[in-house]
Formats: sequence, C-alpha cells, structure tokens
Amino acid sequence: MIDKTITNPQAPGRVARRDGRGTLGAAPIFVLVEPQMGENIGACARAMLNFGLSGLRLVNPRDGWPNERAGAMAAGATIVIDQAQVFDATADAIADCQYVVATTARPREALLPVLTPNEAANALKKRISNGEKCAVLFGGERSGLATKDVVHADAIVSIPVNPAFASLNLGQAALLIAYEWAIADGREAVAVAAPDLMPATKEDFERFFGHLIEELDRAGYFYPEDRRLNRQHKLKAAFQRAGLTEKEVSALRGVIKALVMGAKNK
Amino acid sequence: MIDKTITNPQAPGRVARRDGRGTLGAAPIFVLVEPQMGENIGACARAMLNFGLSGLRLVNPRDGWPNERAGAMAAGATIVIDQAQVFDATADAIADCQYVVATTARPREALLPVLTPNEAANALKKRISNGEKCAVLFGGERSGLATKDVVHADAIVSIPVNPAFASLNLGQAALLIAYEWAIADGREAVAVAAPDLMPATKEDFERFFGHLIEELDRAGYFYPEDRRLNRQHKLKAAFQRAGLTEKEVSALRGVIKALVMGAKNK
Repeated sequence: MIDKTITNPQAPGRVARRDGRGTLGAAPIFVLVEPQMGENIGACARAMLNFGLSGLRLVNPRDGWPNERAGAMAAGATIVIDQAQVFDATADAIADCQYVVATTARPREALLPVLTPNEAANALKKRISNGEKCAVLFGGERSGLATKDVVHADAIVSIPVNPAFASLNLGQAALLIAYEWAIADGREAVAVAAPDLMPATKEDFERFFGHLIEELDRAGYFYPEDRRLNRQHKLKAAFQRAGLTEKEVSALRGVIKALVMGAKNK
Repeated sequence: MIDKTITNPQAPGRVARRDGRGTLGAAPIFVLVEPQMGENIGACARAMLNFGLSGLRLVNPRDGWPNERAGAMAAGATIVIDQAQVFDATADAIADCQYVVATTARPREALLPVLTPNEAANALKKRISNGEKCAVLFGGERSGLATKDVVHADAIVSIPVNPAFASLNLGQAALLIAYEWAIADGREAVAVAAPDLMPATKEDFERFFGHLIEELDRAGYFYPEDRRLNRQHKLKAAFQRAGLTEKEVSALRGVIKALVMGAKNK
C-alpha cells in the first residue's frame, strides 16, 4: 500500500542530477519562511520528494540549521534536507526567481490574483517550461506568511479546505502543492491497465457465451421457449457489463465445462 | 497561513447533520483496514474533516478502539473519531456500500480498473449523486491492503508518486483522496477575487494615463517629439499589463500630483 517506504538507493543521485540525464526536470523551489519545528521541515522534504521536487530553501528557521529533527523526519528524503539553502530574508531567498506564488489562508488580504492549487501548478509549469525560475512560499507554523512576505509573490495559492475546519499543517500544504505540481508536470499516473486487463475480443466473448447457451439448452434452462430471447439478452448483458478479459472468458469456459462434467458424473 | 487551526464550535454539529440542513452533503466513507497507530487514524480523521468528510470506519484496529492517541492527534476532528464505526472484517465494513475503491501502491496485482485520484473522485461523485453509498479502502501501515481486501473493490486508486521515493503515510494518502473528493464535489475554492481587486474601468484608466502624459508633457519628458507616440505606447502597455484596480489608479493619480507638487515646491 501507499504506506510502505520504498527506498531506492539510486534516488538521491537521480534527484540531484540537473544535467538533463536525471529523471527530474526543472521544478519550483519550496521556500519555508520562518519555519519552527524541524519535524515539519522534514515532512515538507518528504512530501516534496514524493512528488519529484527537491529544491528547498529556508528563511530564518527558528531552531537554526542543520536541524537533527528535520533530518530524522525526512527519512529517505535527506537529499532534500542536505541540499537545503538558508537565507536571512524572504527577498534574498527568491532573489533569483522570476515567478513566485504564496500559500496563505487569508487570500483576501492581499491585492494579488488568488489561484487554486491546480491553477497555481499550471501557472508554475508554464513559467518553468518558459525557462523561468519559480518558487512557492510557505509560512511558519504559528502565523503563516506575513504581508511583508506575501507582497513578494505574483499570486496567492489558496487550498479549498472545509471552512469549518481549515487546519492544514506545513507538511500537508506542501504535499498538496507538490501533488498538483506533479500532475501539472505530466507525471504519469501508475494508472495504466495491467496487461491481464486486456478485454476479450468480441469473438472470444461470443464463443464463450455460445458455449454457455448451448449447455443451458441441454439442461432445459430455456423452457418455456417463448421467453428464451429475453432471458438470453439479460444474461448476455450481465456478462458483457463485466468487461471480461481474455483470461476470464477462458476461465469461465472451464467453469461451464466443470459444472457440466460434475453434473454428468453424479 | 494554512497552519493555523481554525476551530469552529459549530462545526461538529454541522458535520454530523444528515438532515439536509447541514453544510456537508453525502460523501464517501473512508475505511481503514487494520490500521496500526492511533496517531495515523487521528491524522486521517483530520485530513477527512479538512475536506468535509466525516464517515470513518475501522476494520480491526491493532490497538483496539477507542484509542486515546487517535483522539489526541485528531484534535478538532474528534467528531470524526467519535462517530467512527468498528468492524471485524472488510466485507462487513462495506456491506452497505454500492461502490468501493481501494488505494494501493501495487495496482498491477489486481484485475481491476486503475484510476488516478482525480478519476476516482469523479467516479465517487457520480455514484454518490446517483444515491449510491460509496467507500474508499486504505490499508494498514505495514503492508497495505491485502489482495483479499482489494477484491472487494470495484476499482483501484493509484496516487502518482515519484517511483524513486513512493512512501506516503496513511494520513497523507487520506489527505490527497479527501482533497480530490472536495474538488470533485464542487467545493468552492476560496479563489475568488477580493472586492479590492476589481479592475479599473477603461475610462478611469484613460483618465489616469492622460493625467500622467499631461504632467510628463509639462516636464518636457517627450522631447524630441518624433518618438513621443512610441514612448507613450510603451509606457501605456506597462501600466496596462499591471491590471490596475480602481483604487490603484486613484492612488497613482495621487502619486503623480505629489511628485509634481514636490517638484514645484523645491
């Protein structure tokens, strides 16, 4: 399940490579402004790497840097922690960026466009494809981004949480933005049909269904004859709706045979 | 920022109401199969409530139920914890459901359609709008969903994580699915333009720009005259690109006046 930590000793190298031979292309940098708990920085690093991001910058982390707890929480994502850069001011952390979005729960305070995570990810993707360096600002645990930080941004990202229960921690906010980035970046979902899921051809299906009807006929199932067609159609629709695979059709033919043989041997 | 816990004493009542007067409509039930740590159950409850979900079912929680740690971690989402139902078997937990999806990192093992979180959320929304009761299965921390659990599902949901670093914990997986549900359910993002963001009318903008040109003219800015139009156009494009609001246009007129007055008083 998704809970298993699948560590890959090759991952750090692949993530760190920026020479075009790595698996990850250009991506936004996550900037944590005055984060407090090392655990939360570590959780951010994990969430980032889960979705293929590795550029992390910290502005005035409360407990200094490096931070043991961040490393411990990051677990397999230490590559992100190890390469994190520390800055004294938000302006310095984004000085080399062309486009910056700020995550905040108070979108109405600032005179900036407000984007959904999906819109923000698409905007970031477009800019990055255009060669721009981009960043996402996240505020600290206590009070989030101050207005003086938000004004550095070109747009605000607002996550559509339940207004009656809007608490999202730093790691969760980072996870959602990283997830939307991965989708905007065209990360192929694992959502491909397994080879065994190839549906049977109509010919195979008809052969199976014909076999079933034949045996049912022998068993006298369709008596009285006047309702035969109606019953056949209903039966066929039920099997058809299942979208049977080639293997399943073959297995079902075996089932029919077995049932018939079993009945004969009684 | 999104880290602030915004607790609303009215929330539990609103969430619990199923009489049509509450703020939350029908939604999928989250079923945790053999979860181990109470903290993770609590994190799931929080993630659910963050996105407006409240139906939680547990199959054989390792440490029994109720679990203090789950309650502590759930914080303001205790309503979800308090109403959680416990079952001995996965089949019992979903017996009243018409459509079930299973989250797993091993989509190729089962002969089921594999959906992205977005596709799954849309499928759930469609079924629920149709009056069907739906559930999402999540596996336990150690080994995820067993095949015997997955076969209860109609489809598999696979989160497109970085294959080189695919660890997502229970709470994170629940967060992403709940987030996609909220979007599929039409949760309005807070992404509405603030009233102050209303762009200025073209008339207001032209009046401001005319004012600027007038003052620049007085200052001899457009000498030599042959490049006047070109320079005016460039200047206008820059201001236009900013998408100035009514208030900003008004403020800028004040700026022009102040600059001119200041110059006169020198």
